Amino acid sequence: MIYFDNAATSKPDADCLKRALEYLESDFYNPSALYAEGYKIQLALREARKNLLSLIAPCNDFDLIFTSCGTEADNHALFSGIKRGNLVTTLGEHSAVFNAANELRQRGADVRFAALNSDGSVNAESLLDLVDENTSLVSVIHVGNETGAVNDISALSAAVKKKNRSALFHSDGVQAFGKLPFSLPRTVDMYSVSAHKIGGVKGCGALFKRKNIAVKPIIFGGGQENGLRSGTENVFGIKDFEFAAMKRYFGLEANFSRMRKLNELMWQSLDKSLFKRISPEENSPYILTVAAEGLRGETIMHEADDMGLVIGTGSACASNDKKRYSRIILACGMGETLADGVLRLSFSPENTEEEVLNGAKILNGVVANRKRIME
Amino acid sequence: MIYFDNAATSKPDADCLKRALEYLESDFYNPSALYAEGYKIQLALREARKNLLSLIAPCNDFDLIFTSCGTEADNHALFSGIKRGNLVTTLGEHSAVFNAANELRQRGADVRFAALNSDGSVNAESLLDLVDENTSLVSVIHVGNETGAVNDISALSAAVKKKNRSALFHSDGVQAFGKLPFSLPRTVDMYSVSAHKIGGVKGCGALFKRKNIAVKPIIFGGGQENGLRSGTENVFGIKDFEFAAMKRYFGLEANFSRMRKLNELMWQSLDKSLFKRISPEENSPYILTVAAEGLRGETIMHEADDMGLVIGTGSACASNDKKRYSRIILACGMGETLADGVLRLSFSPENTEEEVLNGAKILNGVVANRKRIME
Repeated sequence: MIYFDNAATSKPDADCLKRALEYLESDFYNPSALYAEGYKIQLALREARKNLLSLIAPCNDFDLIFTSCGTEADNHALFSGIKRGNLVTTLGEHSAVFNAANELRQRGADVRFAALNSDGSVNAESLLDLVDENTSLVSVIHVGNETGAVNDISALSAAVKKKNRSALFHSDGVQAFGKLPFSLPRTVDMYSVSAHKIGGVKGCGALFKRKNIAVKPIIFGGGQENGLRSGTENVFGIKDFEFAAMKRYFGLEANFSRMRKLNELMWQSLDKSLFKRISPEENSPYILTVAAEGLRGETIMHEADDMGLVIGTGSACASNDKKRYSRIILACGMGETLADGVLRLSFSPENTEEEVLNGAKILNGVVANRKRIME
Repeated sequence: MIYFDNAATSKPDADCLKRALEYLESDFYNPSALYAEGYKIQLALREARKNLLSLIAPCNDFDLIFTSCGTEADNHALFSGIKRGNLVTTLGEHSAVFNAANELRQRGADVRFAALNSDGSVNAESLLDLVDENTSLVSVIHVGNETGAVNDISALSAAVKKKNRSALFHSDGVQAFGKLPFSLPRTVDMYSVSAHKIGGVKGCGALFKRKNIAVKPIIFGGGQENGLRSGTENVFGIKDFEFAAMKRYFGLEANFSRMRKLNELMWQSLDKSLFKRISPEENSPYILTVAAEGLRGETIMHEADDMGLVIGTGSACASNDKKRYSRIILACGMGETLADGVLRLSFSPENTEEEVLNGAKILNGVVANRKRIME
């Protein structure tokens, strides 16, 4: 079976899992417990925090809050980052930010959505137009989960701060962390990440936050995570996340080049008379989104699945919305016939050239066959 | 090593873990994905939900929301249960409810705390006095995590509903679920549980909620859990929780009797000239809280730990508060010299009579020795 839906979730890395299982099989203690066994777990959490911080925030100016997932990290950033004033975000956000922003709007907040370019990235002019002296928070996704479009959050956050020094800048980095080479610039204040997109397990995420900004908890209780996220820590998930992230960052540049080649090979191998490219040229190499115009993506996906190829249709999370068309694809300015046929192929460093060639063959065959039937 | 801190966290059950690992090693797919592999996981989640519901809510009138922990379930109940009007809770709550209630008070809500009886249970008269026609939510812990005192939530919720039919009744069942034989009565609307207290893994909890009540999400995004809790589901944690809970409920009555015997044996084996009993006589058999008056519980705990006996001092979660005395023990009316020496012994079905006898011996020795040194 060929698995090209790594942006939805990735297979947990077997080596990391094996190491992390120690925290379920023997070192299962509560890290808040004061006896030696508990303290040892507290130290293990400290090490995980330090190691994760070192990957994208090496200058000691960030801290991180472990959360139960990327969605919680996004919610935490938005609900605690918005003060008086307005929130500026984009039409290209993952639903974790998009729907949290809509909830804030429903509660009476002034929430503004910047338009997208046709390639799925945020339109910088639109974004900056919306920022004013009353903006308390700006949230821009780093890599769009549906198209793989990369937003230059360094440049965008710098431009935002130039217009309003006191506005906080958050980015959802779930599809970027462990995939794109970068470090958090001085102008980004909060950054959300998730473990299960990079070979970690589901149930673990984190919010990187600049040390000098104050955030409020959204979950209250025993005061874990420095009072910012209560609840017994998912030690196994956190240690596994640490191991998986370390492994991904160890091979980051090499993986990036290899993924670029696989991504290009995939696009080259698809029949251009059948597929239209949705992803921008300068996309994240981990995602290639295409459309089989006039066909339904869901049908193609099921037929490919029957032939041993697993691919996505936009965001997995969007399936709960029960909406036929992706709001993000429509916001890119694509029509409904194109939006209907969207397929997302998303890769991991475990994928091979052979899988790409076989996958393309299956897709070409399925779509050609469908078109033939429809004629 | 003897482990008597099972109320803080329990060792994950090896058999359940082995079965649940399937969801990390092979069936790792995103349950929201629409292809066959994803749908299979969706079905596995459905089965977990059905099985967990069958354990304490067999009449098909409840649903449940999977959360990342018991604390999140408590927060969800409080933040979404409070409408206009007041919230009535108790001084004996776990900090997940207590601090969420305090946060609501800070935000301007009318929050009322009922007094405790000297044994740690809530004073029913005090609770009912606080309930009035404006009460929107009442939250009473089922088994107190520090003393093991059992609140009769059936009687209390019935009395609350008699006074105000429209008030919702929530209970934190984290120390009761999988331990006490009971089913959710018609007068309880929401009930929080946690996996890692009964042989499941950290990172998974649930909020049981009556089908006919409306609750709002506290985390927004992809619309998982019927729109009530967004974020990719922790499938492994949820399946492991299902297996662990099923196992615990299979042996529930037998475990209950055995724990009662172990608990009594423990108390009998402690030197009454050294220890004062804090737990009520009719406590949960899974918890025995005692105090070594005039000594510091923390010192005893460390010395016992050195001798191979792991015990707690009140709640593990409270260690983050950095407060010397437990607010709950003080609310029971005990003085500071007693509160200082509190030790919580908490058991699991894996514990043996031999461990109890050896544990008591260690504790008697440590405390006698400490007293001798202090004289």
